[in-house]
Amino acid sequence: MAHSKHTIKAFDSDLDELARAIAEMGGVAERQIAEATAALTTRDGDRARRMIAADAMIDAMQRNIEERAVETIARRQPVAGDLRQIIGTLRIANEIERIGDLAKNIGKRIIAIYGEEMPPRSMRGVNHMATLMLAQLRDVLDSFARRDIAKALDVWTRDQDVDRLCTSLSQELLADMMEQSVAMCFGAHLMFCTKNLERIGDHTTNIAEAVHYMVNGETPLRERPKADFASMLTVAVGRTYNLRLKQYRRSELAPL
Amino acid sequence: MAHSKHTIKAFDSDLDELARAIAEMGGVAERQIAEATAALTTRDGDRARRMIAADAMIDAMQRNIEERAVETIARRQPVAGDLRQIIGTLRIANEIERIGDLAKNIGKRIIAIYGEEMPPRSMRGVNHMATLMLAQLRDVLDSFARRDIAKALDVWTRDQDVDRLCTSLSQELLADMMEQSVAMCFGAHLMFCTKNLERIGDHTTNIAEAVHYMVNGETPLRERPKADFASMLTVAVGRTYNLRLKQYRRSELAPL
Repeated sequence: MAHSKHTIKAFDSDLDELARAIAEMGGVAERQIAEATAALTTRDGDRARRMIAADAMIDAMQRNIEERAVETIARRQPVAGDLRQIIGTLRIANEIERIGDLAKNIGKRIIAIYGEEMPPRSMRGVNHMATLMLAQLRDVLDSFARRDIAKALDVWTRDQDVDRLCTSLSQELLADMMEQSVAMCFGAHLMFCTKNLERIGDHTTNIAEAVHYMVNGETPLRERPKADFASMLTVAVGRTYNLRLKQYRRSELAPL
Repeated sequence: MAHSKHTIKAFDSDLDELARAIAEMGGVAERQIAEATAALTTRDGDRARRMIAADAMIDAMQRNIEERAVETIARRQPVAGDLRQIIGTLRIANEIERIGDLAKNIGKRIIAIYGEEMPPRSMRGVNHMATLMLAQLRDVLDSFARRDIAKALDVWTRDQDVDRLCTSLSQELLADMMEQSVAMCFGAHLMFCTKNLERIGDHTTNIAEAVHYMVNGETPLRERPKADFASMLTVAVGRTYNLRLKQYRRSELAPL
């Protein structure tokens, strides 16, 4: 189908608007992660409640982008590269919505552990991980705005650092729980917070893949250099456990 | 725009094909949950590995549905109710893909805890929860196939049972970990398995909402009767802890 100049212009302006909407939505998601981390560090239940409530905004933004993207497809009937831009945008909006949900989950756990003793070592770790995560999200949103495939791939590769950090944090937490130097329930909640951050990392790499697809027409090699959380956790905890066993000779601990 | 009879027929047949693809994809997701649960119960690492590998099929099915849906929008330019059918289908494919990921996560944890002692009480609980989940998923897929809004709402409401079960299972697990009657690392992995099942429940209710939207044009009341996992866990564990404190008077335990 031949497209008139007018149609092409109209399509480009639709696309620009969608890109702006994504940038705005991404900015809100960044703020939500920062708020969740701040609320966790300062044990601020009210701040957590506010950021939980703000998640509805991200959901609304996603619905809005979805509707506008579908409208654009129906009206402009884009093909090939143009169609790819729209599908990519839809995917990215979807990933940001999931990131918002995960940030909200952290907020919920802050309320659940309100008033409990906080192990400073673990909190430093969570803060460090959140900082790393925010940089990743900022970079991948930037790679989308500039259609910068090298930057997208960079984010994609760096995700293993987030995975490793998550594993070592969980290892520390489990060790603290074993020694009863942190309350069991608190430790469990903090472990889920850590895992939520790690999953935000996964969605960030999915955005990197979507950017790659929009620019290149294909998704990068499916097998990402991934540090596997589940199996690494076992190895790591086993190692800690053996070490501690030597230190304390607490034979009543169940075998790991 | 006036649509010819031919266009309407072609659109309906596109829609039927998409519905068939969703049914097929949903069937694979059901099988994946069943396989993950069976592998967990029988401690079958090979079975877990097979089901992890099979997740790629669900991902491919989603991409395929996405592409076909977008093609249909571009070719048939549906509006109003017709457009809603396509958007609903896209959303459901997306939710099933997430369900597949969560089932895969359970598989990964099975491999991580391979060879460890298994507390029968908790395993019975996980099995019960998986059975409940499978019935929910089957029902919601059925509600989609028949466009049965009452059945969809039924699934939507019943999700709180899954939430409650998740909380009580996590409570049991934490208590077992406190008493050191289950290995810390095993307990942590099993808690994540439980949480994965609970999240499969959330996506199932999202499918119920999508069915509601397809039939009625709107999403049901956003506030679902939801048993909140994070806060319930704290209350539940606090209760257990107090009980056990009386039983054992182990004052060295950190306060919950």
